[in-house]
Amino acid sequence: MKVVINISLKEGVLDPEGQAIKTSLSNLGFKNFSDVRTGKQIILNFKKIDENEAILATKKMCEDLLVNTVIETYKINVLKD
Amino acid sequence: MKVVINISLKEGVLDPEGQAIKTSLSNLGFKNFSDVRTGKQIILNFKKIDENEAILATKKMCEDLLVNTVIETYKINVLKD
Repeated sequence: MKVVINISLKEGVLDPEGQAIKTSLSNLGFKNFSDVRTGKQIILNFKKIDENEAILATKKMCEDLLVNTVIETYKINVLKD
Repeated sequence: MKVVINISLKEGVLDPEGQAIKTSLSNLGFKNFSDVRTGKQIILNFKKIDENEAILATKKMCEDLLVNTVIETYKINVLKD
């Protein structure tokens, strides 16, 4: 079972990478947007496991290691095989 | 209109960040998965634009700047307001 974690900066937290991308795109002529934000994606390939168990384990991993909850938020999506 | 670009390494390309995350999680006691992959997410906030135009423009941005198509693949999702 695949679990996808999308980690992004909280609203209001400065995103320098997004700013840099916006500037570069604007230099290439793409100027039609107000904002660019970036995030990380982590895909876990679980061995045989119950869906609820997988979500619980993933939440714990996020809180313990993967996400800096002071400035980042995360969303967990389960992709069924 | 929000357009989300998910960029990930192609199958078979070594993912050292994913390996490091797997090792760290394993050290914390989470050993129940076969594989960890990482990716990037870029969220573009378009000003008023037609959906098809937005997708075309985003594809061009990916090919021109955002994605290294030799080792990476990308998926474009449109989130309607």
